[in-house]
Amino acid sequence: MKAAVWYGKKDVRVMDVPEPPSPKAGWVKVKVEWCGICGSDLHEYLAGPIFIPVDMPHALTGGTAPVILGHEFSGVVTEIGPNVTNVKVGDRVAPDACQVCWECPRCRENRYSLCEKLAFTGLMTDGAFTEYVNVPAYTMYKIPDNMSYEVAALIEPLAVAMHAVRRAPLVQGDTAVVMGAGTIGLATLMCAKAAGASTVYTVEVARARKEYALKAGATAVLDPTEGDVVSRIRELTNGGADVVFECVGSDKTAPVAVELARSAGKVVIVGIFEKASSLNFNALSFTEKEVKGSLAYYGEFGSAIQLVADGRINVEPLITGKIGIEEIVEKGFEELVNRKEENIKILVRPF
Amino acid sequence: MKAAVWYGKKDVRVMDVPEPPSPKAGWVKVKVEWCGICGSDLHEYLAGPIFIPVDMPHALTGGTAPVILGHEFSGVVTEIGPNVTNVKVGDRVAPDACQVCWECPRCRENRYSLCEKLAFTGLMTDGAFTEYVNVPAYTMYKIPDNMSYEVAALIEPLAVAMHAVRRAPLVQGDTAVVMGAGTIGLATLMCAKAAGASTVYTVEVARARKEYALKAGATAVLDPTEGDVVSRIRELTNGGADVVFECVGSDKTAPVAVELARSAGKVVIVGIFEKASSLNFNALSFTEKEVKGSLAYYGEFGSAIQLVADGRINVEPLITGKIGIEEIVEKGFEELVNRKEENIKILVRPF
Repeated sequence: MKAAVWYGKKDVRVMDVPEPPSPKAGWVKVKVEWCGICGSDLHEYLAGPIFIPVDMPHALTGGTAPVILGHEFSGVVTEIGPNVTNVKVGDRVAPDACQVCWECPRCRENRYSLCEKLAFTGLMTDGAFTEYVNVPAYTMYKIPDNMSYEVAALIEPLAVAMHAVRRAPLVQGDTAVVMGAGTIGLATLMCAKAAGASTVYTVEVARARKEYALKAGATAVLDPTEGDVVSRIRELTNGGADVVFECVGSDKTAPVAVELARSAGKVVIVGIFEKASSLNFNALSFTEKEVKGSLAYYGEFGSAIQLVADGRINVEPLITGKIGIEEIVEKGFEELVNRKEENIKILVRPF
Repeated sequence: MKAAVWYGKKDVRVMDVPEPPSPKAGWVKVKVEWCGICGSDLHEYLAGPIFIPVDMPHALTGGTAPVILGHEFSGVVTEIGPNVTNVKVGDRVAPDACQVCWECPRCRENRYSLCEKLAFTGLMTDGAFTEYVNVPAYTMYKIPDNMSYEVAALIEPLAVAMHAVRRAPLVQGDTAVVMGAGTIGLATLMCAKAAGASTVYTVEVARARKEYALKAGATAVLDPTEGDVVSRIRELTNGGADVVFECVGSDKTAPVAVELARSAGKVVIVGIFEKASSLNFNALSFTEKEVKGSLAYYGEFGSAIQLVADGRINVEPLITGKIGIEEIVEKGFEELVNRKEENIKILVRPF
């Protein structure tokens, strides 16, 4: 079977690999239908290794590079290992990407994305930019018959966004600001709207992404290159938003997220950062604002599938490209690097 | 009557001022028994104006410098204005220092220390380093007959600490770290213990303050000049504390507070900062830690009085000096500047 294998920075090879063996106890084999390219895949391609273990085997999975990338996927269960009872062969699924120990303090609280030994499928162990992948049965979430596999491949990033909204928590009637209109920013905007946010302002500079945000339901899109976003949002929200989501991951935008919140407002940090920011902590103590991180999800897949299935969230417009596995470098990674603004989610067909 | 009046940086004058007139409707006149010197008084003395309005009248009170300092006080009600029903002449009181509008969004939520027009007694309007002060009746909290006025003057900083513990919220069984062992740090340590924290570690460098922390019930005191506090606390708490209180206000300690918290742990920022810190927001997003500010209190005076009255908290050891109003500069402000480590709370007798 073909697979996209990370060997190093700027070295992702599409090659033939053997199909994985029959799954062990508690595991299942999934035939991958579609797998989206995530920002973290792109980071590994451009600047890796970041999450990929290279020097020593991963604590949970024993995995090291080379590793098959891909974790935003949908597929069908083709084989189950011993003691698997939650899925059967033929089930259509959108798998959770977190492989965890279930033993550490956070796992025992079911905050499993904070597992001490967290292994993301497709980063710390082989993933889904290939035809078949073995994963733990506890990562399985069934999708309804009428949900396409393309849409199902978006459930993973949607769960990230839903988790951020729940982490805040954003409650009905809140005003919100989402900084950034990439996949996670747009999905967060959709989730915030579906959660009953009264208004959701998006902050974005790229023309194409501004349009996506408006189509996704943004109350308005504000461009920091065209005016003072902080004073404008304070004006629009009567002093700042109830909840601000930082979905950019820039050292410059994170402190602005704090400024955009009202006194006693909440800021959720969803982005991943390359540099440290400058923050005067008086921005928190004088106003009792709170800033909290949000990482992946703790089982939001079921709810995410439900909200898509019943039409409250429509992730289809996020799909801006569909390519074959052989094209993953040129029409996937390079396309996302060179034409970042026009693309949101590129899905890869692995066979 | 004598009063300590702030005219400018390093210019606090003890002088004769007229007794305030009869209180207006909704206000009361309090005869001050004791008033503590707060860190913010010291800041105004050393580097002010910080909170004191000098160029334009305060939005709520119309106050401007010169202003009588002092807000951590106890006393007796000597006169009530029209429509005052919550206290009567002769009541012994520990007044709240927040004068607020009761009309802005935060006031309407009763988060009144975040009032848009917040005026601290003794900073934005005349305070209690004098014999008589007029204050709003809603700031009155009665103290029991057997509580000394000296102890009652500590209720204000204790309410700040209790508010920080409630803001976290720290719940029974939590592990806690308190950074700094000044008045607020020590009071936070006491409140954390009284709230049921299983262990409370104090981080402090000054010898005298380390001893105060141990006497106040710290599980252990760690000195960053004597070893790596972060790795030691991670060891002692199995990965980091449930709740960390930053009661120092240094650009260097605030990011360390974040490091001292466990994954998904809470950091409460109580300090007031002079400089911006360097913070990589991955420290929040990768671990889902949350950082929140805590400012003053929202009515914790009643509970603070109760916990002191029934012996669960003993603030008496925090009193390290008692002086007369004429000595306030030399034996108060200058003493606190020159012998910061040996002093915690110096109380001033205004007559």
